[in-house]
Amino acid sequence: MKTTYRAMQISTSGGLELVDRPTPGDEEVLIAVEACGICGADLSDIDKADRRLQPPRVPGHEVVGRIIALGSNTPSAWKLGQRVGVGRLGGHCNECNECRGRFNLCRNQPVLGSSCDGGYAEMMIARATGLVSIPDKLSSEEAAPILCAGIATFNALKKSGAEAGDTVAILGIGGLGHMALQYARKMGFRVVAVGRGDNIAEDAVKLGAHRYIDTNKENAAEALNKMGGAKAILTTIGNPDAVLVLMPALTPEGRLVVLGVGKDPLPVSTGYLVGAERGVIGSITGSPFENEKTLDFSVLAGVRPMIETMPLEQAAEAVRRMRSGEAKFRIVLTMGDQTNADQ
Amino acid sequence: MKTTYRAMQISTSGGLELVDRPTPGDEEVLIAVEACGICGADLSDIDKADRRLQPPRVPGHEVVGRIIALGSNTPSAWKLGQRVGVGRLGGHCNECNECRGRFNLCRNQPVLGSSCDGGYAEMMIARATGLVSIPDKLSSEEAAPILCAGIATFNALKKSGAEAGDTVAILGIGGLGHMALQYARKMGFRVVAVGRGDNIAEDAVKLGAHRYIDTNKENAAEALNKMGGAKAILTTIGNPDAVLVLMPALTPEGRLVVLGVGKDPLPVSTGYLVGAERGVIGSITGSPFENEKTLDFSVLAGVRPMIETMPLEQAAEAVRRMRSGEAKFRIVLTMGDQTNADQ
Amino acid sequence: MKTTYRAMQISTSGGLELVDRPTPGDEEVLIAVEACGICGADLSDIDKADRRLQPPRVPGHEVVGRIIALGSNTPSAWKLGQRVGVGRLGGHCNECNECRGRFNLCRNQPVLGSSCDGGYAEMMIARATGLVSIPDKLSSEEAAPILCAGIATFNALKKSGAEAGDTVAILGIGGLGHMALQYARKMGFRVVAVGRGDNIAEDAVKLGAHRYIDTNKENAAEALNKMGGAKAILTTIGNPDAVLVLMPALTPEGRLVVLGVGKDPLPVSTGYLVGAERGVIGSITGSPFENEKTLDFSVLAGVRPMIETMPLEQAAEAVRRMRSGEAKFRIVLTMGDQTNADQ
Amino acid sequence: MKTTYRAMQISTSGGLELVDRPTPGDEEVLIAVEACGICGADLSDIDKADRRLQPPRVPGHEVVGRIIALGSNTPSAWKLGQRVGVGRLGGHCNECNECRGRFNLCRNQPVLGSSCDGGYAEMMIARATGLVSIPDKLSSEEAAPILCAGIATFNALKKSGAEAGDTVAILGIGGLGHMALQYARKMGFRVVAVGRGDNIAEDAVKLGAHRYIDTNKENAAEALNKMGGAKAILTTIGNPDAVLVLMPALTPEGRLVVLGVGKDPLPVSTGYLVGAERGVIGSITGSPFENEKTLDFSVLAGVRPMIETMPLEQAAEAVRRMRSGEAKFRIVLTMGDQTNADQ
Ligand SMILES: [Zn+2]
Ligand SMILES: [Zn+2]
Ligand SMILES: [Zn+2]
Ligand SMILES: [Zn+2]
Ligand SMILES: [Zn+2]
Ligand SMILES: [Zn+2]
Ligand SMILES: [Zn+2]
Ligand SMILES: [Zn+2]
Repeated sequence: MKTTYRAMQISTSGGLELVDRPTPGDEEVLIAVEACGICGADLSDIDKADRRLQPPRVPGHEVVGRIIALGSNTPSAWKLGQRVGVGRLGGHCNECNECRGRFNLCRNQPVLGSSCDGGYAEMMIARATGLVSIPDKLSSEEAAPILCAGIATFNALKKSGAEAGDTVAILGIGGLGHMALQYARKMGFRVVAVGRGDNIAEDAVKLGAHRYIDTNKENAAEALNKMGGAKAILTTIGNPDAVLVLMPALTPEGRLVVLGVGKDPLPVSTGYLVGAERGVIGSITGSPFENEKTLDFSVLAGVRPMIETMPLEQAAEAVRRMRSGEAKFRIVLTMGDQTNADQ
Repeated sequence: MKTTYRAMQISTSGGLELVDRPTPGDEEVLIAVEACGICGADLSDIDKADRRLQPPRVPGHEVVGRIIALGSNTPSAWKLGQRVGVGRLGGHCNECNECRGRFNLCRNQPVLGSSCDGGYAEMMIARATGLVSIPDKLSSEEAAPILCAGIATFNALKKSGAEAGDTVAILGIGGLGHMALQYARKMGFRVVAVGRGDNIAEDAVKLGAHRYIDTNKENAAEALNKMGGAKAILTTIGNPDAVLVLMPALTPEGRLVVLGVGKDPLPVSTGYLVGAERGVIGSITGSPFENEKTLDFSVLAGVRPMIETMPLEQAAEAVRRMRSGEAKFRIVLTMGDQTNADQ
Repeated sequence: MKTTYRAMQISTSGGLELVDRPTPGDEEVLIAVEACGICGADLSDIDKADRRLQPPRVPGHEVVGRIIALGSNTPSAWKLGQRVGVGRLGGHCNECNECRGRFNLCRNQPVLGSSCDGGYAEMMIARATGLVSIPDKLSSEEAAPILCAGIATFNALKKSGAEAGDTVAILGIGGLGHMALQYARKMGFRVVAVGRGDNIAEDAVKLGAHRYIDTNKENAAEALNKMGGAKAILTTIGNPDAVLVLMPALTPEGRLVVLGVGKDPLPVSTGYLVGAERGVIGSITGSPFENEKTLDFSVLAGVRPMIETMPLEQAAEAVRRMRSGEAKFRIVLTMGDQTNADQ
Repeated sequence: MKTTYRAMQISTSGGLELVDRPTPGDEEVLIAVEACGICGADLSDIDKADRRLQPPRVPGHEVVGRIIALGSNTPSAWKLGQRVGVGRLGGHCNECNECRGRFNLCRNQPVLGSSCDGGYAEMMIARATGLVSIPDKLSSEEAAPILCAGIATFNALKKSGAEAGDTVAILGIGGLGHMALQYARKMGFRVVAVGRGDNIAEDAVKLGAHRYIDTNKENAAEALNKMGGAKAILTTIGNPDAVLVLMPALTPEGRLVVLGVGKDPLPVSTGYLVGAERGVIGSITGSPFENEKTLDFSVLAGVRPMIETMPLEQAAEAVRRMRSGEAKFRIVLTMGDQTNADQ
């Protein structure tokens, strides 16, 4: 086993650079990363990173790899060589008051790729409490995006209040949206994909949409209302303009579930809320336990992300492709050499 | 068909006078009104009324009186002389598709005081499906405001997701708010009243608030957060500025429940929603069946509106006092002569 | 249109006999029956029918046909020639107190095939409030069993508390069970069919079970517990012995959902309930509005009953085949001549 | 600080004997016990205790005291001198899979007084994860019974599905029942106490019951049904005969919530469950986090157990009084000398 490892870190100029890195402490493990998805949130992590940080931050929070070293006091469930993942939540502290019931709200939980180093790297140190067991039936590349894009959308659908047979609209068919379409279809909803342009129309239907609405061609709210309206609208887009035009399609007692954060607030009419008892709710990622449920459901129901893979060394180019919109759904970085080193 | 009939009724001088009385149609009843609360929504009903309408609209949707005539085909449960009420929803149609499960959403339901005549009157015609039975233990004056201000707040508290012991903040301590304080206290919540000025501080505590926060003196969000935050905030105020400053006091997974409609939209930050899975939901009045539950709970738990009564003839002055804020909680119009005439 | 119609009614000897019958009253419609499923409950309806009744009772509560006459005061939504169905609940009264919110609990609601005549007939009179609109994409023979076996299982799954990915076991793979398997699969559950014998093993898997457990060969509770236990167990069987052996497979906080009524009580250990907060709940059919949701979901998700059809004249033989277990899933009576007459 | 401490332990003959005991290990604390309630479950803990155990088991799971020694690695929230409690659940392991979301189901959790030593003692060693912070406004004697009798009933009421204004019947007005009456009243339910004999009638009403039904004098189910039935029945009694006679009082969609475990099963009619969608569910104690919520609600709403106190040395007599029914609601053992020693 190597005692140092290479990582792509954010340079002082804001770009990415390849460096060496050192090992796990108490209740931590060292992971040989095999795959790390590039999430939309990575872009703002990179932009917002504190450039004075030494060593600089490593992005990435859709990480899958194998445990290659166990720190002291790690639960016996985690074994050397086991394949594990880590999502956005870096592991709860088991110390604070919130950890007595609601791990997602832990006050001392690192945010992967933002307040602690993430998975754009050959190795990563992770808190044992943040670990997620990966089912054998998923490759590391497939599993990675499920750890953020998957759980975010699967949990949001569960919280949406929609029941089997209800219409659910998914706004924004990218990394999150293309997972949402699949989960929604497998959960028994009538699924409507809402996107801009016709280049993803075919994919949307293949992924599970009963119908695709191209907002360049149709008034999406009108089209949905002709179908009886949507009991839930999931928006993966934080841009208020795109959301506002779709909101009139929500049925009475329906829920707009917001997954995407934008910089401008969403102006919500009080009459819209009160008159038909509608609601606008936020949903975020979940705990490692919930992440395992998401992975299991993905295996059970045959849900897989649509991915392009690129080697770690091309992380900068991968991020550029995500930013520009050239990448359709998800790019996953792979760490081929390290994987071999581990075997 | 004639829509009125002539009757000799006993005048205030004790003599007999000839008057016209309206005739109830199919599945309708004629009510001799005894009391009608003045709701904040009456003000906008009055302002927005179509002035060309003949006869002009009668406001009022917190109506209690006695049945003095039964139209054809009314359910046998409703008897001559029975004391009944009608709230904002004028009675569902039993015809439309929504009426097969969700009466509140009936597509042909008159809105009392807005799309059909209300209770600022000695008599009122009501759809039998809109009738609410009034418990003996409530006077007509007490019962009237429960039919709108009461049910709106009682139902909103039920939908808020808060459990016994959770902190619930009530923003705006007027007609709705002063009912909300009482219900919230009797449902086992930790109740915080949030208002402007100290003239209602004492009343708020007497009505059930564990604490009153005067926004003129304190930063309400900070004060609430020191108490651990609010699991639910009920706002009876539609003014976005007042609501926005309180919103940071909502706990993770908390709900802002909007009861008051304002003309400006509420700008909701997506980060606020997503980061802690908060939600903003609307709540409105309920069905006659739910109104009876609200009345029963009011009797069970000793909840009563704080009212001033004024005779029907002074309705204009009463409305003026509501508009100016001179009336503290609720004014109820009384129809004394009519009540006598009915006996 | 004929002015009388033939029906299979229960004779004084308890058998079935073919007779003539006559027309619709206020708020009723006359239906030319096209198909009527034979439900397990029909057997006890037949056995328990009051034989002194004149005219005797007509069984059948999975009825699909066309409206051929409208009584007075029927809602305008129902048209001559429209294809409609009626399930177990014969239509609420819109008069009683329960009808102000919960139609399923109406105090004056006829029970089709038990307290009012059902669909083993060429024609049937139905309350307009009991009517269910049938989607074009379902044949009458397919739609009929959905009206009782379908809604019973679809609603039960919704009430089971299980979420997508959770394991749901279905006990008893007959008329109800074979629908439950399909719905459960399409709602995203991990589906385990539990039956006796291997003759239905293949069908069970084809219908959607991820796994079939033959209780003749395996200890079903053990097998389920090896899979992690079931979050919900639906039993379509009322026989306590069969249910009891499966109950240990319920996870903590799980629900045993009882659909089948047996004559002996189910002995439930209090330690079983308390120790892991398990529950045993009953579920029954739903309202016409819910029945339309069930039909729509069946179309959306491609759920269809597996049926054998037999002509009305062979009702007695069909019932015999149901009783003996010769019929695998569902027999549907067809009224071919009447269907032609209607066209 | 003393290095050994005295405890009442179960002797080989099944009686109680006073002995010395020794100190806290990793992630454990040593508590100087101030009060320990005697729960009904203690009686069976004593009866079922393994008499070969060395040292023998100490009963008691409603324990309040002060931390007098901190083992290694205890969370910083726990301080020397802090007043804390421990209920039935002795602290989760933070290791097993269940501990990643549902502490109540931890596979390695000691059961206080049964699988680990409890609070009939001057000192007790407790897992830090089992600790409950005690509010200043409660004396140790008052707080103790809330840790089992309190949380069991408070949580059960939350899970019952009843809403403010609904009728809730409490069967068995003893240690648990007298807490249930108070919580139920403060949560806004219509509260009916059901007991045998009239000696507790007055207490029941004083504690919060709107009505007391003496099953010696009245048919309780009939009496409840005259009031409209109960939306929830909480039974603290595990004896099937007592429960069965009350069950017909449950409304449609109502829930019988079982808190008391008996040795005989409860025979539940399937028709009872299915016909009106009733349910029978179990409820048990909760986590330390939930226990703090129960204590807070008790302070907020003024809920207190009715207790007799007896010194530790008289534990055997106290247990005898509980067994015989001489003790009305709750006996709490006090450890006066130790409390002084701690100060
Ligand atoms: Zn992400
Ligand atoms: Zn924490
Ligand atoms: Zn109003
Ligand atoms: Zn309607
Ligand atoms: Zn049936
Ligand atoms: Zn009815
Ligand atoms: Zn106990
Ligand atoms: Zn554990």
